[in-house]
Amino acid sequence: MIEGAADTRLPYPYLLFLGDATEPAFAKTAFGLRDWIPERCVGEWGCSEATVSTGLPRLDPAAARARGARALVIGVANVGGAIGARWVPLLVEALEAGLDLVSGLHARLADVPQLAAAAARLGRRLIDVRVPPAHIPIATGRKRTGRRLLTVGTDCALGKKYAALALTRAFAARGRAVDFRATGQTGILIAGGGMPMDAVISDFEAGAAEILSPDASPEHWDVIEGQGSLFHPAYAAVSLGLLHGSQPDVIVVCHLPGRERVLGYPDYATPGIPETIELNLQLGRRTNPAIRCGGVCLNTSQLPAREAHDLLARESHRLGLAVADPLRPGREFERLVDSCLA
Amino acid sequence: MIEGAADTRLPYPYLLFLGDATEPAFAKTAFGLRDWIPERCVGEWGCSEATVSTGLPRLDPAAARARGARALVIGVANVGGAIGARWVPLLVEALEAGLDLVSGLHARLADVPQLAAAAARLGRRLIDVRVPPAHIPIATGRKRTGRRLLTVGTDCALGKKYAALALTRAFAARGRAVDFRATGQTGILIAGGGMPMDAVISDFEAGAAEILSPDASPEHWDVIEGQGSLFHPAYAAVSLGLLHGSQPDVIVVCHLPGRERVLGYPDYATPGIPETIELNLQLGRRTNPAIRCGGVCLNTSQLPAREAHDLLARESHRLGLAVADPLRPGREFERLVDSCLA
Repeated sequence: MIEGAADTRLPYPYLLFLGDATEPAFAKTAFGLRDWIPERCVGEWGCSEATVSTGLPRLDPAAARARGARALVIGVANVGGAIGARWVPLLVEALEAGLDLVSGLHARLADVPQLAAAAARLGRRLIDVRVPPAHIPIATGRKRTGRRLLTVGTDCALGKKYAALALTRAFAARGRAVDFRATGQTGILIAGGGMPMDAVISDFEAGAAEILSPDASPEHWDVIEGQGSLFHPAYAAVSLGLLHGSQPDVIVVCHLPGRERVLGYPDYATPGIPETIELNLQLGRRTNPAIRCGGVCLNTSQLPAREAHDLLARESHRLGLAVADPLRPGREFERLVDSCLA
Repeated sequence: MIEGAADTRLPYPYLLFLGDATEPAFAKTAFGLRDWIPERCVGEWGCSEATVSTGLPRLDPAAARARGARALVIGVANVGGAIGARWVPLLVEALEAGLDLVSGLHARLADVPQLAAAAARLGRRLIDVRVPPAHIPIATGRKRTGRRLLTVGTDCALGKKYAALALTRAFAARGRAVDFRATGQTGILIAGGGMPMDAVISDFEAGAAEILSPDASPEHWDVIEGQGSLFHPAYAAVSLGLLHGSQPDVIVVCHLPGRERVLGYPDYATPGIPETIELNLQLGRRTNPAIRCGGVCLNTSQLPAREAHDLLARESHRLGLAVADPLRPGREFERLVDSCLA
């Protein structure tokens, strides 16, 4: 069901590599894969210093290979996106055990001489999913066939990917033809393909979004993972190129209650939900005049269930829209799905 | 007066290379250099097929070198931005005559084996100004000191660079401390430095704009060359990153009367001037709440003088703003300068 757009499929099942992570926040790629494609994850592995665990079996590369793993995925992101020096001997061990390496870090695997040499010697692949394809075209602005939903946000890192994945699954459960279209490294690893929108050269940003969700049959849905926010002082360009090129028929606005300041930018207030809806519709109309808001996803992971459902009800009343937490199945979420498909 | 932001200065004076151009539109870089930095252009040269002329003396590389030229600049842009095969022997001749090569094409000089070999053999430089610097930071959103003006547009290719250059000169003529900040290849060649905004990776777009116009003394002006348009179906991401990162105090909206459709996008109407002002102010407020519109530049190059001045007066009355053609000196333009500096 969750399929990507890349021409070349990633080699799964995966062994998830946790590096030397001692904080779950730095292993969010591994957790994302465990949550969304557990059937493609045979186990986890890491340096002896790593204290984080996904709960999957701990397997060395040879054991993982014996259980069918085809690649080791770097499931950890340290500050700066570099490949840790302590990781390198373990990554070489994985290559020697018969695994390809897959990374979504900014740093490129092939730029580490020991990895390049070992991969060449062993005939293994080094796959950097954050590298965009060559020859992305300039956007045409031509309206494409098929239907599209884009998750957008009041900020970064508050649930746009999980919302898109949950909506994809729900659309499929309703019998709709649907593809999840990944736009960031974790999403691409989950989908097996996609477009790393933040790594595309600006002139080609909208063009990259256009080829990510190509013409499709009239009833087919692409559910596109949003990036950043139109209000973000650093990343709004990514968000606008994605909005224009995606030509969404439906947007779903994602927010984390309590996130009052842009993450890492304490001088910048997060926008309100109505303001976020309005600006996305205003700018999105340029390439799809029929754009509408399907509803709101709130990330209530930090609240007890009762408080979460109370908040969803209050916000739905205040906004006059379907409001749900995509990770809390139930009536609210089904109502959001109804509204998106309407 | 017109100074760029790059660490490394370009080697001028230039010999302008016209390739095999037979249409002035394909030689607009050469015309831009002739118009704005004639004192840095010793002559022109090209294939025998070239019928375009800038009016500068036609000099072969040896003669240009003898007159002080330090580099040959590729002043022509063909469709696709490639280096023409017929140009290569002439470019090698320029290297042999002691000139460096400077290009703003998408294609890179060093990717042409004959040029790479000749440059290495002769100790010459191959300078691709469309290549952004390494290690551009993520934008901080921090408000910088000094004053900034950004030219913005209803579309591409209608006068944002010329407007910024004319305003830079006018500010200097009024005794203001001012730098022109170039954001495209022709502007960078004119300024001797700058930031090729359309070639920057999207995640770093606003960060690139931030480092292009760094902190300055409170009365200093950066006049920043705009790119694209917030309404452009392909390039709006570039425009928004530049707007957010530039944090302009003043915008000047540029328009070509009669351009009713986005260039190359016949399905897209160009926005009206009031709509363009409003959207730029709305989005620009995110990083500079004090942003205001200083006025409008109309490109009236296709009109006789009398009609042009009538149009400027009518539009000024309609919009309630200073409206001028920056290439028609006079009262209207001085009023626009007054309004920007107010």
